[in-house]
Amino acid sequence: MLLTILYIIGITAEAMTGAISAGKRKMDWFGVMFVASATAIGGGTVRDIILGHYPVAWVKHPEYIIITCIAGVVTTLIAPWVERNHRLFLVLDAIGLVVFSIIGCRIAFDMGLYPIICLIAAIITGVFGGLLRDLICSQKPMVLHKELYAFVALFSGIIYLLLLHYKVEESLTTLITLIAGFSLRMTALHFAWSLPVFHFDLHDTTEHKK
Amino acid sequence: MLLTILYIIGITAEAMTGAISAGKRKMDWFGVMFVASATAIGGGTVRDIILGHYPVAWVKHPEYIIITCIAGVVTTLIAPWVERNHRLFLVLDAIGLVVFSIIGCRIAFDMGLYPIICLIAAIITGVFGGLLRDLICSQKPMVLHKELYAFVALFSGIIYLLLLHYKVEESLTTLITLIAGFSLRMTALHFAWSLPVFHFDLHDTTEHKK
Amino acid sequence: MLLTILYIIGITAEAMTGAISAGKRKMDWFGVMFVASATAIGGGTVRDIILGHYPVAWVKHPEYIIITCIAGVVTTLIAPWVERNHRLFLVLDAIGLVVFSIIGCRIAFDMGLYPIICLIAAIITGVFGGLLRDLICSQKPMVLHKELYAFVALFSGIIYLLLLHYKVEESLTTLITLIAGFSLRMTALHFAWSLPVFHFDLHDTTEHKK
Repeated sequence: MLLTILYIIGITAEAMTGAISAGKRKMDWFGVMFVASATAIGGGTVRDIILGHYPVAWVKHPEYIIITCIAGVVTTLIAPWVERNHRLFLVLDAIGLVVFSIIGCRIAFDMGLYPIICLIAAIITGVFGGLLRDLICSQKPMVLHKELYAFVALFSGIIYLLLLHYKVEESLTTLITLIAGFSLRMTALHFAWSLPVFHFDLHDTTEHKK
Repeated sequence: MLLTILYIIGITAEAMTGAISAGKRKMDWFGVMFVASATAIGGGTVRDIILGHYPVAWVKHPEYIIITCIAGVVTTLIAPWVERNHRLFLVLDAIGLVVFSIIGCRIAFDMGLYPIICLIAAIITGVFGGLLRDLICSQKPMVLHKELYAFVALFSGIIYLLLLHYKVEESLTTLITLIAGFSLRMTALHFAWSLPVFHFDLHDTTEHKK
Repeated sequence: MLLTILYIIGITAEAMTGAISAGKRKMDWFGVMFVASATAIGGGTVRDIILGHYPVAWVKHPEYIIITCIAGVVTTLIAPWVERNHRLFLVLDAIGLVVFSIIGCRIAFDMGLYPIICLIAAIITGVFGGLLRDLICSQKPMVLHKELYAFVALFSGIIYLLLLHYKVEESLTTLITLIAGFSLRMTALHFAWSLPVFHFDLHDTTEHKK
């Protein structure tokens, strides 16, 4: 199954970026495995908990968390190579983002939830891993500040739901969504597209009043 | 139903204060919608997850999360007006706090849980939204440091449970709790009441030993 | 039951260390009770939520959360004594760590989950309380950075599962695990054992390229 292979590539890549963040914070091997796993499978875990979708993915498939732990520890050995291939990881991360979004959307859809909840499930699965990584490592949460990231998850979810709605054959639906979502993310990276930023500075307004 | 109307007012006001916090951190529109929603409906989400009360409120009623997202984005347009009407938002926040507490207490009560768990459910529903907002925005969590806030949730829960216990008619119970809780919160704000603070400074004690 | 007595000693000690952290952040009484409870019973709460093991421990046994709240407030009165007996609390914390690990492992085992998930349940129960405390108090998460802590939880879980597997009588299994885990933790503290640290400094590598 294409989606499963891409999912495993996705969690491996996410785990490696998580491990790099842990290394910047000088964490020990447990910290590395923890941040790697939270980054890679934290989004799916939060989604399953919020939707009450038990058992949580990695409790049913412990091989996923074993992969992320191994990927984390391996990263400590090949960190300079990972950093040098920064662009490769942006590509793998883009694949992971779209795959996670499709899986999140599908799970909510199969639970018979509202379309808007399916889209939120896509976003949670796609972006919460990175958000958890940034909160644990006391970094400014990247997904809340810039880049078209959550929007790509939303876009992928919309495409996927629309194709399902129009009875497009399922593997074709997945493939089209993958290509569309991945293309949007890579284009957004290339042109540095981002959502409008809301900058509200209390002190500025106070000073203007003077 | 009075409670539903006040609930919608409450989540709208909370979402707007969340959006202001996001604006102070220069987040993008997704960040704004995320922090707004976490502030407004995060407390109820944490309560439902801890109690195993599925489906989570906004999964069943997606209109709530649509309201908080819209309120967040609208706030980016009218932020100076929101900041100028700071006092109005303290009033709306006080209403939200008591309404959230009543709803949290009621849900635990209807699940047949112990009275002490009903009170904890009231506190979680009332204060966790603001706590999540402060953690996501790396702000010092206001509710853990000062102001009579969690105590108002506890007080509202106690009044509500007592009135239910003495078989007071349900809409009357809600009304009395609303008035009592709201009055306590506004009085506490007016006189700047707060709980005792525990200040433990390790370095001070070390120095005293010298 | 030995395990229950040790569990109550464990959550009391953990709650007191949580309260000390809250005091260093100048929190009010609610903050103190909240951080104390999160430290002591947060790990078990996260474990129950991830495993879908409802009701969560303290919802079924509210006396646990009452104990942690009282322990937190009492700590505000005897903080200098707690700090002076720092070594005693390291011992009590070691007992708590192993007891929490055994309980976490047992719950997952009774749910019929994979051995690897039982071990992860042991680790989550043992270390997440301290992790939550550090995140709420904006402290560098101790368990992710140094000391043999999560590894002790893993080790205790492995011993416990092995003894169960070889049909050792249950109270003997618990006793042996307690002694083995406690001994490892105290020895690790004595010799300052720790896991390898992964230190990755982006700026260093960038400068080396120059």
